[in-house]
Amino acid sequence: MADPSFFRKPAAFSLAKIAGLTGSELHDPSQGDFLVDDVSSLDKATATQLSFLDNRKYRDDLTVTKAGACIIHPDFASLAPAGLRLVLSKSPYKAYALAAQALYPVEIPAPQIASTARIHPTAKIGANCVIEDFVVIGENVEIGEGAWIESHAVISKGCKIGKNFRAGSHASISYAVIGDGVRLYSGVRIGQDGFGFAIDPAGFVKVPQLGRVVIEGYTEVGANTTIDRGALGDTVIGKGSWLDNLIQIAHNVKIGRGCILASQIGISGSTELGDYCAVGGQAGFAGHLKIGSMARIAAKSGVTRDVPAKEEWMGYPAMPMKQYLRQVATLNKMIAKK
Amino acid sequence: MADPSFFRKPAAFSLAKIAGLTGSELHDPSQGDFLVDDVSSLDKATATQLSFLDNRKYRDDLTVTKAGACIIHPDFASLAPAGLRLVLSKSPYKAYALAAQALYPVEIPAPQIASTARIHPTAKIGANCVIEDFVVIGENVEIGEGAWIESHAVISKGCKIGKNFRAGSHASISYAVIGDGVRLYSGVRIGQDGFGFAIDPAGFVKVPQLGRVVIEGYTEVGANTTIDRGALGDTVIGKGSWLDNLIQIAHNVKIGRGCILASQIGISGSTELGDYCAVGGQAGFAGHLKIGSMARIAAKSGVTRDVPAKEEWMGYPAMPMKQYLRQVATLNKMIAKK
Amino acid sequence: MADPSFFRKPAAFSLAKIAGLTGSELHDPSQGDFLVDDVSSLDKATATQLSFLDNRKYRDDLTVTKAGACIIHPDFASLAPAGLRLVLSKSPYKAYALAAQALYPVEIPAPQIASTARIHPTAKIGANCVIEDFVVIGENVEIGEGAWIESHAVISKGCKIGKNFRAGSHASISYAVIGDGVRLYSGVRIGQDGFGFAIDPAGFVKVPQLGRVVIEGYTEVGANTTIDRGALGDTVIGKGSWLDNLIQIAHNVKIGRGCILASQIGISGSTELGDYCAVGGQAGFAGHLKIGSMARIAAKSGVTRDVPAKEEWMGYPAMPMKQYLRQVATLNKMIAKK
Repeated sequence: MADPSFFRKPAAFSLAKIAGLTGSELHDPSQGDFLVDDVSSLDKATATQLSFLDNRKYRDDLTVTKAGACIIHPDFASLAPAGLRLVLSKSPYKAYALAAQALYPVEIPAPQIASTARIHPTAKIGANCVIEDFVVIGENVEIGEGAWIESHAVISKGCKIGKNFRAGSHASISYAVIGDGVRLYSGVRIGQDGFGFAIDPAGFVKVPQLGRVVIEGYTEVGANTTIDRGALGDTVIGKGSWLDNLIQIAHNVKIGRGCILASQIGISGSTELGDYCAVGGQAGFAGHLKIGSMARIAAKSGVTRDVPAKEEWMGYPAMPMKQYLRQVATLNKMIAKK
Repeated sequence: MADPSFFRKPAAFSLAKIAGLTGSELHDPSQGDFLVDDVSSLDKATATQLSFLDNRKYRDDLTVTKAGACIIHPDFASLAPAGLRLVLSKSPYKAYALAAQALYPVEIPAPQIASTARIHPTAKIGANCVIEDFVVIGENVEIGEGAWIESHAVISKGCKIGKNFRAGSHASISYAVIGDGVRLYSGVRIGQDGFGFAIDPAGFVKVPQLGRVVIEGYTEVGANTTIDRGALGDTVIGKGSWLDNLIQIAHNVKIGRGCILASQIGISGSTELGDYCAVGGQAGFAGHLKIGSMARIAAKSGVTRDVPAKEEWMGYPAMPMKQYLRQVATLNKMIAKK
Repeated sequence: MADPSFFRKPAAFSLAKIAGLTGSELHDPSQGDFLVDDVSSLDKATATQLSFLDNRKYRDDLTVTKAGACIIHPDFASLAPAGLRLVLSKSPYKAYALAAQALYPVEIPAPQIASTARIHPTAKIGANCVIEDFVVIGENVEIGEGAWIESHAVISKGCKIGKNFRAGSHASISYAVIGDGVRLYSGVRIGQDGFGFAIDPAGFVKVPQLGRVVIEGYTEVGANTTIDRGALGDTVIGKGSWLDNLIQIAHNVKIGRGCILASQIGISGSTELGDYCAVGGQAGFAGHLKIGSMARIAAKSGVTRDVPAKEEWMGYPAMPMKQYLRQVATLNKMIAKK
C-alpha cells in the first residue's frame, strides 16, 4: 500500500467499475462485484489489491502472485494461475494507469494564494489557482485557471500560460508561452538566453537571444531540465511531448508532438525532431539537424547527421541500428579469433 | 519581430549607422540612409529588417529572402539576389551580434533592493544594484556596482564579487571570488563541497574542502551548471570563458581563458584546460589531466590522457581525430565486405 | 592557507596529536611536539603546514616540498627528502582527511529558526536545528535533532528525516524517508514523479507514482542531482552511498550500501546496484538490470545487461573491461597496418 504519510487511502472499486474505467473486460464476468482497494506489483500484491502484467520480465511473478486481480493481455491469460481474477486489456499498462488514477486521484490543494507570494499587480491569475509560499510572478504574466504553482517558483514578466498549469518548487520560467495542461517539475529552467556568441580575439560577442520558448500543451518537463529560448524565432516543445530530468534543449530546437525524451539528453541549437520520436537517455544531437517523425534514437547515441523518419539509429557517430550492431558483432568476432 | 511581451520594439537604425557600429562596409554606400527597425533570420525577415548569412547551411535562404538588408561576408556577396542591400563584414556573425545588441539593448531594471531580500548588515553592496525578491546575501559579502541579482538567488558569507554581476533566479553562490562582468544563470551552483572522501571499510571519511571557486571575469555560466570548490587550492574559471547549461566542474579544475564549454560536459577533479579550448557537449574528462591551449575536444569524447595544445581529439578513450575517423571508416569497410 | 573569508584559522596541533587522531605513527617519535597549524598540498605547503602523499602522480612534489610534515605510506618513506617530518599511515588519504577535519571542524551556525521560514504547525522539528531564510516545511514533516536547512530549501508534507540532516539551499524534498547523517546539496530534487506513462495514440496516459524515496543514512547527494520516487514501491539509496552532482536516479532504482556514483550518471527505472559498487562519471544504465556487489563500471559506459558481482565493465554496450580494451587495441592495430 502507498505510504499514508503521502497518499490518501483509496476507496474500494468493483472489478466491473475498473473494467469500465479502463476499457477492459473481465475474464469471468461473474467476478464484477469483487472489490479492490489498492494497486500493487505482482510480487507484493495482497488479496484485495489489483496488479498488472506488462513487462514480460516479470512473468514469473504472475504464477506466484497473491493479488486479488490482475490486468493482463488476453494472449497471456492462459499463463495466469487458477483463481486469479483477470481483467483483460490489449493495453494492460494503460489500463493499469487508468485504474491507478481512479484509486489515487491527484490531490490538489484548495485554491489559495500564499500571503508571502509576490505577484505583480498587472498579472492576471485565473480562477481556482494554488500559489504557494515565496512564489514570484512578474509584470503582465497571464496564468489560466486551475494552476498550481509550488513554493519558490518564479514566473517572469510577460509569460502567458494556459489552464491547469503546474510548476514544481524552484522552477524558473521566463520568455515563455505555455499551453494548457503543462507540468514543469522542480528546478526546471525555461527561457534563459541560448548559448550564442560570436568568437572574437578580444572576447566573445554576445548574440542577443530574441526568441521565446513555446510549450504547446500537455507536456511534462522533468526536474532540473533546461530549455533555452530562441535566438531568432522560438524554441518549441510540441503538444503532448514528455521530457524527463536533466535534459538540455538549446535555442531554436523544435520538438514535434508526442515525443518521448529520456533523461540527460542534449539537443544542440536549431535541431528539429519530428512527431512521435523516442530518444534514449544521455543521447546527444549536433546542431541544425532534422530528425524525421517516429525516429527512434538509442540511449547514449551521438547524432551528427539527419535521421530519416521511422528509422532506428544508434552509436557515435550515430548510424542505423543494424549497421551499429554489425560493427559490434564484427569486433567481437575478431577478438574471439585471437 | 521579437514578441513585445518580452522585448521593447527597437528604434530604427540607418544602414550607415549599423555599418559604423559593426565595423562593416556597405556594398552600395548610397544605401546608407536606409532604415532597419529589427533583425530576423533570412527566411522570415521582412522589408525593413536586417538579416545575416553566416552558416552556409542557410545559403539557399539568401536567394529568396525578403530582408531589407543582409550582413554577409564579401566572398558571398555575389550569391545575393539583386536588390538585397548588403552590409559587408569579414565576421558577419559578430557584426550581426553587435547590430542586434544596438537594436535590443539589455533592459536592466532601475536600481532597487526588494523589501523581501535578506541582506546581512555587514554585506557591502555597490551602487546601482538591482536585488530582487527573496534574495539572501550573507555576512561580509561584497558586490560591486551594477549588479542584478534575480529573485531567490543566495550569495553566502564571504563571497567577493566584481562589477556588473548578474545572477539568475535560484542561483546558489558560496566560497566564491568573482571578477567583473560575470553572469550566472538560473540554478547555477557555485562553491559546494567537492566530491572528496577517503574510502574506509567503516564508511567514507569526508575530506574537508578548503578551497574556493575563482571566476576571473567576463564569464557566462549556464543554467543548472555546478562548479565545486577546491579541496586544497581553488577551482578556477579563466577570464572570458563561457560555460553552457548542466555542466559539472569538479574540485580543483582549472579552465584557462577564452574557453568554450558546451552543455553537459563533465570535468573531473584537478584536470586543467589551457586557454581557448573548445569542448563539445557531453564530453567527459578524467581527473588530473592537462589539456593544452587551443585543443578541441569533440562532443561526447571521453578524455583519459593529456591532450597536446592545438590538437583535435575525439572518441572514448579519446584519441586524435584522424585516428578516430580512420577507426570508424575501417569498421564500416569491414562490414561492407560481408 | 584556506581563505579566512570562508574558513576560520585553525588551532595548532602537535604531530603527536595528529598521529593519535589519525591512527598513524611518527617516523621519528622525537618530533611529536612539532606544531602544525594548517594543511596544504605538497607543492604549496610552508614550514608549519601538514601535507600528504597519496596519488603517485604527485610524487615529484615530495622531493621539493617545504611542508613542515607529511603523511605518507611507510613504503614511500624512503622517497622523502631528509628533514621532512613523516607521519606514517597505511591509509594516508584517510589520515589526511581526519587531520584536516580536526584542523577545520565544520562550523555549524548556532541553532536558530529564521523568522522568514514557513513551517507548518504540525511539523516536528528536533532540538538544535538551524533553519534559514525562506525555508518551507510542510504538514506533518518530522526532522531529527541537529538539522541544518539552508535558505529556500523546501521539505514537503509527510517527509520523515533523521538526525544531523543537512539540506543545501534550494533543495526540494518530497515523498521521502531519510535516515541519520544525510546531506543533500543545493538544488537536489528528491521525490518527484518518476517518468511513467502508458503510450496511447490519444496522448500519454500518466501512471500515478505511488512510492517514495528512501535514503537510509550517511549519504551525500551532490548539487542538482535528481532522485525520482518509486512508481510502486520505493527508490532506495543504501546506507553510506555517496552521489556526486547532476546524477539522475529514476523510479524504483535501488542502490546498495557504500556505493560511489560520480557525476552525471543516469540510472534507468528499476535497476538495482548491489553494495560497494563504484561507477564512473556519465555512465548510463538501462532499466530493470541487476548490478552485482562490488562491480566497477567505467566512466561513460552504457550498461545494457546484468553485471556479475566484482566485475569491471566498460564501453557501450558495456562489456568486461578486458574485452573492451582488446577491442580498442585490435582497432588500433588494424589502422596501423594500413
